[in-house]
Formats: sequence, structure tokens, C-alpha cells
Amino acid sequence: MGLLARIQSPADLRRLSGRQVDELAAEIREFLVQSVSRTGGHLGPNLGVVELTLALHRVFESPRDSIVFDTGHQSYVHKLVTGRQNFGDLRKRGGLSGYPSRSESVHDIVENSHASTALSWADGIAKANQVQGRTDRHVVAVIGDGALTGGMAWEALNNIAGGPDRRVVIVVNDNGRSYAPTIGGLAHHLDTLRTTRGYENFLSWGKRTLPRLGVPGQMAYDALHGLKKGIKDVVAPQGMFEDLGLKYVGPVDGHDTAAVEHALRRAKAYGGPVIVHVITEKGRGYSPAEQDSLDRFHAVGQIHPETGLPVAPSRFGWTKVFADEMVQIGRRRPDVVAITAAMLAPVGLAPFAAEFPGRTFDVGIAEQHAATSAAGMAFAGLHPVVAVYATFLNRAFDQVLMDVALHHAGVTFVLDRAGITGDDGASHNGMWDMAMLTSVPGLHLAAPRDEPTLRSALRAAVDIDDAPSVVRYPKGAVVEPITAIDTIDGVDLLARHEVGTGREVLVVGVGALVPTALAVAELLAAHGLRVTVADPCWVLPIPAALVKLAGEHDHVVTIEDGLAAGGVGSMLAQRSTEAGVRTPVQSIGIPLGFLEHSSRDQIVGDLRLRPEDITRDVLTALAAANPAGR
Amino acid sequence: MGLLARIQSPADLRRLSGRQVDELAAEIREFLVQSVSRTGGHLGPNLGVVELTLALHRVFESPRDSIVFDTGHQSYVHKLVTGRQNFGDLRKRGGLSGYPSRSESVHDIVENSHASTALSWADGIAKANQVQGRTDRHVVAVIGDGALTGGMAWEALNNIAGGPDRRVVIVVNDNGRSYAPTIGGLAHHLDTLRTTRGYENFLSWGKRTLPRLGVPGQMAYDALHGLKKGIKDVVAPQGMFEDLGLKYVGPVDGHDTAAVEHALRRAKAYGGPVIVHVITEKGRGYSPAEQDSLDRFHAVGQIHPETGLPVAPSRFGWTKVFADEMVQIGRRRPDVVAITAAMLAPVGLAPFAAEFPGRTFDVGIAEQHAATSAAGMAFAGLHPVVAVYATFLNRAFDQVLMDVALHHAGVTFVLDRAGITGDDGASHNGMWDMAMLTSVPGLHLAAPRDEPTLRSALRAAVDIDDAPSVVRYPKGAVVEPITAIDTIDGVDLLARHEVGTGREVLVVGVGALVPTALAVAELLAAHGLRVTVADPCWVLPIPAALVKLAGEHDHVVTIEDGLAAGGVGSMLAQRSTEAGVRTPVQSIGIPLGFLEHSSRDQIVGDLRLRPEDITRDVLTALAAANPAGR
Repeated sequence: MGLLARIQSPADLRRLSGRQVDELAAEIREFLVQSVSRTGGHLGPNLGVVELTLALHRVFESPRDSIVFDTGHQSYVHKLVTGRQNFGDLRKRGGLSGYPSRSESVHDIVENSHASTALSWADGIAKANQVQGRTDRHVVAVIGDGALTGGMAWEALNNIAGGPDRRVVIVVNDNGRSYAPTIGGLAHHLDTLRTTRGYENFLSWGKRTLPRLGVPGQMAYDALHGLKKGIKDVVAPQGMFEDLGLKYVGPVDGHDTAAVEHALRRAKAYGGPVIVHVITEKGRGYSPAEQDSLDRFHAVGQIHPETGLPVAPSRFGWTKVFADEMVQIGRRRPDVVAITAAMLAPVGLAPFAAEFPGRTFDVGIAEQHAATSAAGMAFAGLHPVVAVYATFLNRAFDQVLMDVALHHAGVTFVLDRAGITGDDGASHNGMWDMAMLTSVPGLHLAAPRDEPTLRSALRAAVDIDDAPSVVRYPKGAVVEPITAIDTIDGVDLLARHEVGTGREVLVVGVGALVPTALAVAELLAAHGLRVTVADPCWVLPIPAALVKLAGEHDHVVTIEDGLAAGGVGSMLAQRSTEAGVRTPVQSIGIPLGFLEHSSRDQIVGDLRLRPEDITRDVLTALAAANPAGR
Repeated sequence: MGLLARIQSPADLRRLSGRQVDELAAEIREFLVQSVSRTGGHLGPNLGVVELTLALHRVFESPRDSIVFDTGHQSYVHKLVTGRQNFGDLRKRGGLSGYPSRSESVHDIVENSHASTALSWADGIAKANQVQGRTDRHVVAVIGDGALTGGMAWEALNNIAGGPDRRVVIVVNDNGRSYAPTIGGLAHHLDTLRTTRGYENFLSWGKRTLPRLGVPGQMAYDALHGLKKGIKDVVAPQGMFEDLGLKYVGPVDGHDTAAVEHALRRAKAYGGPVIVHVITEKGRGYSPAEQDSLDRFHAVGQIHPETGLPVAPSRFGWTKVFADEMVQIGRRRPDVVAITAAMLAPVGLAPFAAEFPGRTFDVGIAEQHAATSAAGMAFAGLHPVVAVYATFLNRAFDQVLMDVALHHAGVTFVLDRAGITGDDGASHNGMWDMAMLTSVPGLHLAAPRDEPTLRSALRAAVDIDDAPSVVRYPKGAVVEPITAIDTIDGVDLLARHEVGTGREVLVVGVGALVPTALAVAELLAAHGLRVTVADPCWVLPIPAALVKLAGEHDHVVTIEDGLAAGGVGSMLAQRSTEAGVRTPVQSIGIPLGFLEHSSRDQIVGDLRLRPEDITRDVLTALAAANPAGR
């Protein structure tokens, strides 16, 4: 580890010779494999950008020049060369974030892990530089080919191209793996650029052809150069980026440091907006990743560095239950189709796609289109199931509202990784979905508590044909089934503690926090209270039976894995008030704020969402409401 | 009006001769000018698409083929030829909607007026046709050049291009007026397509040039056709749409019925995705509109049909107050810049742009980019003010949350047309903003009640440099100033009715409903209650002083022009509960649902938001809470 240890800042990097840079790249690859195999993290993407990142920091001068990484999970090399080499606690509390983090370094700008934002950030920074007369500063955005399919990227491209005097360099990190290669016009175009060479090919073609037609040397030369100009004027020859007004440089071999540096220097010298098209290989230099066609090394847990095999096999999770039930639904219902936003395998749609390839649609990183095209499909007689991580549905709020709900479209959204996810940091937590979706008229939302309720919720969801339906569940392993002792108009009763003599408390558990609700009930019962635990599973709209049940108790506590403000408990309180039910509703959930990266358990502890914390808060509220006791 | 009256359905249209179609077009233009000048409505866009719409219905067979209009305000001609010629009550209760409406006709598909959705709808319908084996049906999307700058359109283009065997026809209605012509790469490209003719020009250029170089006739011919093939293989010649894999037809004169029909028939016969580029003139055939460079005939109120002058001059409105204050802020603060999403004049930014052109950015119909590029600008030292209609901010929820709020960016959002807007129908009401924004950590939101509070809220908003700030106000005329009688920690007290002996009620008015709150208070006082009226102006986060005030009363009523569920009242209830304040909060607002087009007053009546309705509900709630009286 000789060279790496000597790199304290990008300035150190700029003093290395070309040969040393190659040595450093090899060192960094070895470091990444060894380190990430111990901690888990985004291995594949970072192995793909080693040379690119070194070249970026040698050609541009961060933080004077701004370097913005899209989605941010490929910033490990950037961290290593900007003074952060302690990767021992990566993505853990107190350790480095798995994404850029302004609190770690002045070299970090964008912490948001949602795709396709980098070009908008870059456009904003470049405009600000221009307004403030800092016209010598460069702004560089590094964005994957997949993220270019997101609508925001297009909006930004259009704006960047509209500023011919602003120094924006767009580095397209093209590994051709972000989505199925046959899908999408952009993929087709990048592929064309990859395999042709524009003018150079045209000129060499002309040099071969014109003489064969009998045109003598100098004349052929003149004709060709005349043609070149003519073509330029007439047929706009270098592809869509230049059609938009962006200078195109590339394609460049992203693992040839000298070539990447050369391309970046050309781009830097250009003085206007430039696209640099860099071809990289995800997992480069690590044979288990290079040989894996399923992109399983994109993000890994702990692995054996030599083999790439996981240290602990993953437990049967919520995603697999969905994957299995979806196939069964597909067999029964030929009208059910599946939509994914470039995450076929991660959201569990691979088995459905294998069995029903003609009924599976990968739309790219394009949640807005996923929702609205689903509304179109529903209009034309299908029932689409759109499967996304909960946090990414935020991108499609307007479309869920104005295309799906307004048009009474029967579309099912399946939200994986709902609630607190933890180690991926603030923007990966799926804690906004319920508060956001309470504002969508007619929408039905289920938060299943276990495998049987997930399966039945999915089956019920695809039967709703006149409104959006949503099924949300957390990341990770599914709990053992929790059987209802009774069901009142669709609301499951899970426990009754009747031995006490104190007030009657209704504890409502939502989805993944049902086990917490059961534990809280036991603790409250131990304090002499009479407690009922209810799980409506379908929490939106608030079931009338739940409002009635609330009215039969002295105090209601709702416990949910989402924002407390505007969430399910908040809605229950409001519906109860409207129905004339005056039982106070204490809604326990995630307070308004962003969560730092940490383990889920640590965050649950911090937020006082452990059973003992909640019990204490309930007892406090009960005491305040009735200081003299009952 | 001879021909028009005989057109009951598109089939009647298909029986007309070409000459009759031209006659009909003239009749329809005359009808539109006469009718819309009486009712108000979207005049300019519909005058621009007369021939195009007739051609569409002659070439395609709706509803078997699906015709989707983007934003929908240009569907008047479509309505006229699909059995709807009674325009007398356009946009009024019981009259025709100003947008497509499924309840009016089987020929209408998309009711959402938000831009850039049509291509996603079309992609979904085409995919559904394919899955169900209806491969002979066509799907046509009509979209403006401006709407193509929206990210959703790009996501959809990419998907449509990815289905080479699906019959999608994209009609780009290019009037070149949707945004400033110098802005944006797409505008540049459309302009290039407009002024060049691709191969045809290239061939004629070659025919002129090669002989001058001494190449004899047949040889020149061979060379050119060889070149044509060579160029096709090497340099992808017809611009970005073909680069993406979409067949391009055009440009076509959109007012030449025969030419448009010919282009559409070619597109129909192609069998795969096609772009038809149609050049139209907004306001065509109506000289006041044709001669107006400011696009003031896009949407009109009642006008004199001969002159185009408004029947009643508009009263001084909220937008003008913002426009004026924004200029003053701009003079004082060189770091303040303005961002608009293709609506410079409608949102009131024209005066600012005139004085500070270098500090004004029109990003296209691109709310996501507006928000995130603003975060970038804030990072780089500016304070951006993003001015949009309230309903359109829904498009940027994720960006407000994950780019602006997460990064503590000082960005101000100014939301015009917040609350109930009425005649534009469901998707134009700005009723989701407050419920949506309560989920954004750190966000400050002001709902000013009059001109002085709007001015002071704006000044305060641009001073917030570490979080998103929002100022929202309604459509229409601003009310007379309402002076506070007292202010407690920033919460204005507007009235005290102390003569009664009944319970103490706190009425909280939010923004445009402050006058309603004052009227409710008077009515309640007449019933013997003691009433205080408070207006916090800054309603998010809920001010501590308001929670304290709530605790000093027996009953709280909040009145807001937004969703009751999850809105300001709901938040006040939750914060009060958390603070141990047990005063019941009755939150009055818009119930969860979509609002049919109607006048604002009619909707207010329907929703029981008139002072007498609210008073009755408050008295009922008070009686229920304490049936025996105090």
C-alpha cells in the first residue's frame, strides 16, 4: 500500500507520473476488494471508476472546480484520494458514509442517492458561477448511462446545452449494465456511439471509396472536406448530444488512464458544455464480479474476497415472498403485467420476468413514466404492478395522483424497503410513502405484517380495478407468521390483555412494527392496563372498523415505520374526530427529520421506537391525561 | 355554420372532401373566436390545431385508435368533431370541461392538465395493445414542443423507441412559442429540423457541388447514393429522434390539411414508432392573437372578439404584488435569482427578468430541474426564487425533499394559484401543497393573507438561507389589507370577540381563508361564544406560540384552503398533542377528493367552506363535546 498512503489530497495525485497512477489504481482496486468484502458496500461500481476518478482529480481542481457524483455510491475512490482512507466502519455509525457527505469533506457536494440529479446540480452550480463572474471554474458531473434515462437528466441536458458559455463537463460513465441492453432508445444510441467513430470513420470510408470511383487524390480531398462541411450544415452528423448543442468527446476506454485524462483535458479546454463518453466495466479487475452476468456485485454484504461468496447466506426475505406470489398471480391473471424502474432483480421481479417476458416492462430509471404508463395500461385493459423501493416512489407523486388516481386506474404499487433502512443513509429510507400517499384520493394502502398477510394483500391489491393500490414492506428477513385471534370487519385483533383493571388501551401496529406493538401491549399489561392489539393491514383509507374500535377504548396508540406527522396515526386521529370519537390518538412514528447512516437497530433506538421507549411514552401520556388515575 | 353542424362524429369528418375540410376549418375558427370570447378559455392553442385535429380524426379511427392530447387545453376542436358543440357553458358547472373528460366522451382519455404526460400514456396503451394482441390499433400522442422539455417526455420517448413493433405516432405540435427561443438544446434542435430538410437538401447540395469538382454525371450520382448509404451507416444523419430509434417525418405545415393528412398517413403505415413534426401558429387566423408577441391569447377571459381586448380589466392581483416585490428584492440583493418553468409572465417574473435578465432562468417545463438546479445555485452562493403554480410543485416533491431540504439549501418557492382555482378542473387546483410540504424536514411555509403580509413573507423567505422556504397565495384579486390588533411571538391576532359568556374558541385562518375565519368568528360571537382570530402567516413549522394559544382556549378551529387531511390543522393537532395541550383541534379544509370544474364560489359552497357552513359545523362539534353546555 505504498502509494495510496501518501495521497492525502488531490494535489498529491497531480504530482504522480503516469506509471505511478497505474500503480495507484492497482493498489486501490486491491484495497477496495479487501475492505468492502469485510464491511459490505457498493463494490462493483467503485471498481469500475478507479482510473476515471484518478483522472478527474488530476485534471480538475476540486473543490474550486465542482465534481458531482450521480447517486453517489461510486464515490469510494473519490473518498480515498480526498483524505478519507479509513474504510473500517464504512456505512456504520461513526464510520464513513457510503455516499458523499458534506460533513466529511469539502470535496463532497451531493448526498442524495436518488439517480439522475447530478446534471441539475451541475447546471445550477454553473449558472451560479456565471452570475457571480467565476467563469474560470469548471463543473463536472459524473453520471451513469442508466441514470441518463431518468427524466431529470433530460431536463438538465436541455438546460446545460442552453448555456454555450458555461463550463459544464458531463462524464457519462457507460458500463452498459444499468438496464437490459435491448430496452430503450438511449441505450441504442449509446451503443451506436460506442461502435462508430463519426467523422473519422466517414473520412476513411471516403478516402477508400472516392478514388475507386475515379476521383483523383487532391480532388477527393477537396470533395471530402467540402462534404464534411456540407454534411455538418445539412445533416447534423454526430448524434443526439451534438444535435442538442453539446460537444461530444469519445468514446474513451475508461480503464486507460492516459486516454481518460486526455479526453478530460480536451473537455476542460473547450470552454462550453461537453459530454465525455467513457466506457467502463463494472467490477473491473475483480474476477468474481467480472464473471457475474447478473450484476450481483453492485452492492454486497460481507463476502469472502477470494471467491466473492457471501459470508452469511441471506435469510428468506419479504422480496422473495413478493417474487413468488407475483408469479402465482401472473399464472392466474393474464391481464397482470409487471413494471420495474431498472431494478428487475432487486425488487423481486426476475422470476415473473423469466416466466412472462412479454408481460414485464423495464422502463429505465424512470419512476414517473412507470406510474403514468401504468395508468395507460390500465386504461387499455391490463392491471400493472409497479415494483419500486419505497423512497423512489417520491419521484412519482404527481403521476400517482394525477394520472393513476384521478383516472381511477387500477394500478398496484409494491414498495420494497419501506420504513427505516439504515446504512444507505438519509435518502434511502422509505419513510415518506404513507404520509405522501394519504393525500391521494381513493388510494388503498396495505402494510402487511408477515408472509401470509403480504400474500393476501397482494392478491387483494390486484383485484382493485378502479383506484391505485399500494402494498409496502420493509427491507430484510420476514418475521414468523403472526396469527390473528379475531377479525372485526377486516381489522385483525392480535392480542387481548384483560387481566388488568386500568384503562383500556388500543395499540395499533402498522406493518413491520406489529411485533413492536405486541411487545408494547405486554409491557402495558404488566403495568395493569387492559390492552388490545389491532392490525388493520389495509391502513388507507382508515377502516371504519378501526375508528369504531378506537371509540371503544380510553386511549389509542398507533405505531408505524413512517413519518408520524401526516401518517396513519395522524389520519386515524382526524377520522376519529370527524366521526365524533373523542378517544385521544397517540401516534408513534418517525419524527420529521433526516436520518444519518447507521444500523436500523441503532436508529430505532435513537428515535425511541423500541417497545420500552414507546411504553414509557404511553404511560406518560396516560398520566398527563388523567393525573389522578381512573 | 353549415358544415360544422353536420359533424356529429369523426366518421362524418372522413366523408368530407379536401375542399370541405378547409371550409370546415374556417368555420371552426370563427366558432372558436366567437364562443371563447364570450366564455373565456384557451383560445390561442385551439386556433393553432384546427387543421391538425381534423386531419387526426380523418386519418385515425378514434376510439379504436387512441388519441391522447398532452395538457388537454387544445382539445376544443377535438370536442367539436366528437359530438360536443355546445360551448355556451365552457368551463362552468354543467358545461363542457376545458380539458378532455372521460365523462363527456369515449374519445377522451387523459384529463390531467399537467404537461408532458401524453407520451407515457401512449406508451402504456401501446404496450397493453401489444400484450393483448391488438397490434392493428394505433396510439397517437399530440404534444407541444414545450412539453417535450419535461423529463417525463424523455422517459417516455426512450421507452417508445424501445418498442420498434408498437404503433405509436408522436405528433409534435411545434409552435416555437412555449418558451424563449434561445433557451434549451431541444429548442435549438427543433429549429434545426425546421430549417433543414435532411437528405433532400444534402442530395441537391451534392448534385450542385460534385459536378463543379469535375465529377461527371453518372459518377456523381453513384457517389452520392454511395455516400448516402455510407453516411447512414456512419454518422446517423437525421437528428436526435432517429438516433433514438424513432422514425422522423417532417417538418409539415400544420395549417395545410392535405400535407398534415399525408404525413399522418405515412406515419400510420409505418408500423413502428414515428415522430411527426408539425409546425403550427398559435392563434392562427385571429389577427389580435397573431399580432401579439407576448402570447396573451394562450388563455383569455371574456374578450371583445373584434379587438381581443378584455371585457373587464383584471383587478390588481396577488401575482402583481409578487412581481413588484421581487423586483425590489432583486435591487437590494444581487444574490437573488429567479427560476421559472416556462411560465415567466404568468407567474409574475417578467418585470424581474426585464431588469435582471442575467439573473433569470427559464428551465422549460421542468419543475424537477427547477428545484434541483436551485439547490445547486444555493450551494454556489445564490438565493434562488422558484416561482410556479402550486399544483405543479407536486412534480418536484422528491427534489424539494432530497436536493433542497436534505442539503439545507436556501431556496424560496413561490406558489401562485394555491388552493381552489375552480374552472380549470381537478388537476389545476393547488390543494396538495401544504399537506405534501408538511413532510419536508426544516421547511418553512408562509400563507400570507393580504398584500402587506405577502410582501413581508417574501422578504423573510429570501433571508432563510439554510432551508427551503415557501410562500403560497391564491389565484385572483388581492383583498384589502387586514390589520392585526396584536401580535404574539409572530402570530397575528386579528379579532377578539369578548362579549359572550360561552366557551373560548380560537379560530385560525390560513392565507386566503383569513376573511372566512373573521366571518366565522363574528357568527360564533353572535351565538354567545368568546372568540379569538389568529393568523400565524408562517404556518410550517407550526409556531410554538400557536400551540400555546391553542392551549389557552377550549376549542380550536383551523380553516385552510388545502387538504384537511395532513394539512396545517392536522399538524397543529399533532403538535398540540405532543406538547400536552388537550384542546380539541377541528381542522376545516378541503376533503380528500378531486374537484370537478366549476367556479371557485360554487366549489366553496359544495365543500361547506362558507362562513355559515363552518359556523354550523363548529357549533355541532362544540355541542357534541359538551352536550350539557358549559
